[in-house]
Amino acid sequence: MASAHISISRINLSHRSISPGLSGKRRYTTIARVAQNQSYWESIQSDIDSHLKKAIPIREPLTVFEPMHHLTFSPPRTSASALCVAACELVGGNRADAIVAASAIHLMHADIYVHDNMLLTDRVEPRPTIPHKFEPQIELMTGDGIMPFGFELLAGSIDPASNNADKILRVIIEISRAIGSEAMVSDQDYEANIDQSSGQQIHRLHESGAACGAILGGGNEEEIERLKKFGLYAGKIQGLLNKMGKNEEGKIELIEKWRALALKELEHFDSKKIEEISSIVTGDSLKFSCVGN
Amino acid sequence: MASAHISISRINLSHRSISPGLSGKRRYTTIARVAQNQSYWESIQSDIDSHLKKAIPIREPLTVFEPMHHLTFSPPRTSASALCVAACELVGGNRADAIVAASAIHLMHADIYVHDNMLLTDRVEPRPTIPHKFEPQIELMTGDGIMPFGFELLAGSIDPASNNADKILRVIIEISRAIGSEAMVSDQDYEANIDQSSGQQIHRLHESGAACGAILGGGNEEEIERLKKFGLYAGKIQGLLNKMGKNEEGKIELIEKWRALALKELEHFDSKKIEEISSIVTGDSLKFSCVGN
Repeated sequence: MASAHISISRINLSHRSISPGLSGKRRYTTIARVAQNQSYWESIQSDIDSHLKKAIPIREPLTVFEPMHHLTFSPPRTSASALCVAACELVGGNRADAIVAASAIHLMHADIYVHDNMLLTDRVEPRPTIPHKFEPQIELMTGDGIMPFGFELLAGSIDPASNNADKILRVIIEISRAIGSEAMVSDQDYEANIDQSSGQQIHRLHESGAACGAILGGGNEEEIERLKKFGLYAGKIQGLLNKMGKNEEGKIELIEKWRALALKELEHFDSKKIEEISSIVTGDSLKFSCVGN
Repeated sequence: MASAHISISRINLSHRSISPGLSGKRRYTTIARVAQNQSYWESIQSDIDSHLKKAIPIREPLTVFEPMHHLTFSPPRTSASALCVAACELVGGNRADAIVAASAIHLMHADIYVHDNMLLTDRVEPRPTIPHKFEPQIELMTGDGIMPFGFELLAGSIDPASNNADKILRVIIEISRAIGSEAMVSDQDYEANIDQSSGQQIHRLHESGAACGAILGGGNEEEIERLKKFGLYAGKIQGLLNKMGKNEEGKIELIEKWRALALKELEHFDSKKIEEISSIVTGDSLKFSCVGN
């Protein structure tokens, strides 16, 4: 998948730029950490995929559920989903608390991806690629069904035993804002305008993913707010990486700036999970998010 | 608006067919009741519109909120929204308990309407009409933002004083199912196939509107289930009325059959509101739903 390869090479490039001249033991340790973090994100993604496969089985009527299954799993994964789980674990929550919200975020992302992939004929290269197994009308209708299904999953994750209704409603507000009018409201600052076409929705989905994870994991208000900002910077980096290749002037510097701002938000936390979640903006672990099914 | 006039004439026609030969006092009483019921639906619709106008003011940035406002208020109103309020009142709830859900249902309907109006070039006459003030791409993106905004409104209507979080989550499930995969799953029976093109979403939105109103009004499980069925028949009637004009063979009979089934569900209720809610399937009051802003 073209976009995946481009992102991976960019990430490796930017990783090298902040880790010059490694050798011997330090180099070995870095590689080991990279592998460990990579495995962390892969295990999260694997759990999200398993949940989605149970939630959207291929069943009768096939005319509905075959395209729905296809359009759910064909788009590349988004790191916004995994960030939701990582944020939950960072504040001390269990993975199971965030897995439904992470799955819902993937569904929102899939809906956006299907729309972008169909309609933006003037999109800047690299264009997203998705195998078109069905008629455009079917794909569009199915995309329209995927988004509400995400909300259905979320609302259905109420658990009287854990008295989580208030948290779920707050998560629904976060996600609906991320994909709704807030995503369409363009930031007026220069930085945002540079990568306008990468989509406010990518930023917002990461911002809301991190916030939702913190909410569901039982984080306090300050933790939620800090992880929300961390998610926003992670989303901005992801958005810019997705379209690296043209007009790169100033972009590497922007990524470095956002990365520093993101990492600053994590200073507040005292957890061994910091290294794992931070790797989403330091480079190597991002690549999982660009690999399709 | 063409579709409005066609629906009104059909409704009047069907009303005459079940009230032949009225004269004198009875005729006067019928007219008075019609006016009273009409005023009931109009007052509900007015309250829903007021709520929506507060929720979606025209504000900066105008590039986002002007099309959002336009696409919210341009489509004809749907009786599914008003049915939500009427069902709430029928089971003894207050109008205020259902007004947010009714507004959210209108937003879902507006999103569906914008999509239908843009994409179904092979639609059976009468085609829906909507003034196109903005570029198609803007209208489609705005439609995509309207649906999540409906969920945001719903989730935001949590009220700790009334401890309504569980009810709201159930309402979110009802509505997301109505506009999601369930709406795409075609009924396999003959009756449904007759009016396939009127859209399962119209049926489901009415079904869910009535169910949501009953849930929010504090109805018991039997009341919710009966009003859900009532809503489904009301939606089927509305869907068929929307496309009356071609292939009418058998349709009048179908409407009469669905109307009888709908009214049967109401026999369970002991409330002076029965007459008001029942008028949504007996004819005259339906016309409000076809009048644009």
